[in-house]
Amino acid sequence: MGQTFTHRIRVRYAECDPQGVVFNANYYAYFDLLMTELWRENIGPYEQMVEQGTDMSVVASGARFIQPARFDDEIDLNAQITRLGNTAMSTRITITRARDDAQLVDGEIHHVFVDPATYTKRPIPDDVRAGLESYLIEEVEAPA
Amino acid sequence: MGQTFTHRIRVRYAECDPQGVVFNANYYAYFDLLMTELWRENIGPYEQMVEQGTDMSVVASGARFIQPARFDDEIDLNAQITRLGNTAMSTRITITRARDDAQLVDGEIHHVFVDPATYTKRPIPDDVRAGLESYLIEEVEAPA
Amino acid sequence: MGQTFTHRIRVRYAECDPQGVVFNANYYAYFDLLMTELWRENIGPYEQMVEQGTDMSVVASGARFIQPARFDDEIDLNAQITRLGNTAMSTRITITRARDDAQLVDGEIHHVFVDPATYTKRPIPDDVRAGLESYLIEEVEAPA
Amino acid sequence: MGQTFTHRIRVRYAECDPQGVVFNANYYAYFDLLMTELWRENIGPYEQMVEQGTDMSVVASGARFIQPARFDDEIDLNAQITRLGNTAMSTRITITRARDDAQLVDGEIHHVFVDPATYTKRPIPDDVRAGLESYLIEEVEAPA
Repeated sequence: MGQTFTHRIRVRYAECDPQGVVFNANYYAYFDLLMTELWRENIGPYEQMVEQGTDMSVVASGARFIQPARFDDEIDLNAQITRLGNTAMSTRITITRARDDAQLVDGEIHHVFVDPATYTKRPIPDDVRAGLESYLIEEVEAPA
Repeated sequence: MGQTFTHRIRVRYAECDPQGVVFNANYYAYFDLLMTELWRENIGPYEQMVEQGTDMSVVASGARFIQPARFDDEIDLNAQITRLGNTAMSTRITITRARDDAQLVDGEIHHVFVDPATYTKRPIPDDVRAGLESYLIEEVEAPA
Repeated sequence: MGQTFTHRIRVRYAECDPQGVVFNANYYAYFDLLMTELWRENIGPYEQMVEQGTDMSVVASGARFIQPARFDDEIDLNAQITRLGNTAMSTRITITRARDDAQLVDGEIHHVFVDPATYTKRPIPDDVRAGLESYLIEEVEAPA
Repeated sequence: MGQTFTHRIRVRYAECDPQGVVFNANYYAYFDLLMTELWRENIGPYEQMVEQGTDMSVVASGARFIQPARFDDEIDLNAQITRLGNTAMSTRITITRARDDAQLVDGEIHHVFVDPATYTKRPIPDDVRAGLESYLIEEVEAPA
């Protein structure tokens, strides 16, 4: 429970803007990339899940940008799952700079699981849930 | 007070993903584009502000994705300013589909004004504040 | 015969790199955008052609970059068709700066028409050929 | 002489278009990425060269697209240098699919070396030339 999944990448020139830093929208593309790698290591290739009748849609996302990442920086994309519902999951994603572990971005992304033919909601498949559970942060129940 | 600034664009093929819809991170690039157009119409070209010693950094953003925009859809990017502080501004951005006014995205973006040489905070210049004020939503004060 | 189709756009901040100019790969995305607009004005929405059983694949492209386009520049994307074969077409694309007509890019893109289900080649549909013919540069035959 | 420099990457979801394959312009972004990695391994971080007074501009590029790369494919970006002039270099780049070595793209990119302050041409620095020489394909002289 509560493990962090990390995937390291290097910032590409094409991802940076005239300020010399990663263009803000591209951090959200990194979030997407991290989900793909979380899948690969814990469940299997994402496309395989789609072929088996399950896809995902992003329903919301958000981020605070604390410090910029620059061209050629190595950065760590870190995920923890904050909610695994019946048809939905929430993931907290932080981005840290590899060389000094400085926190650059603190974000979240919320997905629903859908049927790829109809884009209607469907339950999280059992093997997906099993693959993700070790990254789920234990929710503390409010006292009665 | 409380006007909405709108800029209409058409979704490009390159902005869509294998699901046939706008890739989620690209909506945030639309937010950025809308800010540029808000500036052009109300203050002047963005680069002119930078040359005069003021730039902006995105400190946070977020969005709910309600319905997808598809390749070739005409969409309206709509901005209202929800806060004009001393060095910071917050903008609510919605995206609606032009042909039926369906709401696709409901988001927000938060900027700080900075010195382009040092990236330290600086006050919002007077002409910028004057140009933006008509889009500011009147904050309702809580009763004492 | 030999008309030029032009579509004007404005360079977006997200399309520029740390050198402050349009990132080189993005000019090829502009080429794609120009083809979409060529279709819209002369044949109909691109997606309609796909629904009717015809799609296109890019088989080759190339460009010389003469001068850079910068953030906020208005630029004209200009197309002339240099070849309309049985299953293939070639288009010459130039990019000029609107304010002074300076030539920025001189490029070309080559497409084949395919069946969207199988991605095998198929003849150019008659209505597509009819819509494009006015942009075809008369080929001068080499003397025998 | 004539070595090939190879850098392996995995195709990201955001790089693919509604046809489910890498959007054609993005292959040119891969070319740029490959140049960065060629530099890192053989000369040093690209930004270090810029700080020392040398930058590069792309003056031309081109590619034939033979087979598409798909989401999640591992692909090899392969470079050989075909010309090292006084102020210019030309690089041939092929992209192959890792699992079966199928050739996907055959392209080229041409750079000039410039002063980052003025963007005027400057000679290739000696350490850069030394780092690149092993990738230079021996030019066969035409018989007299």
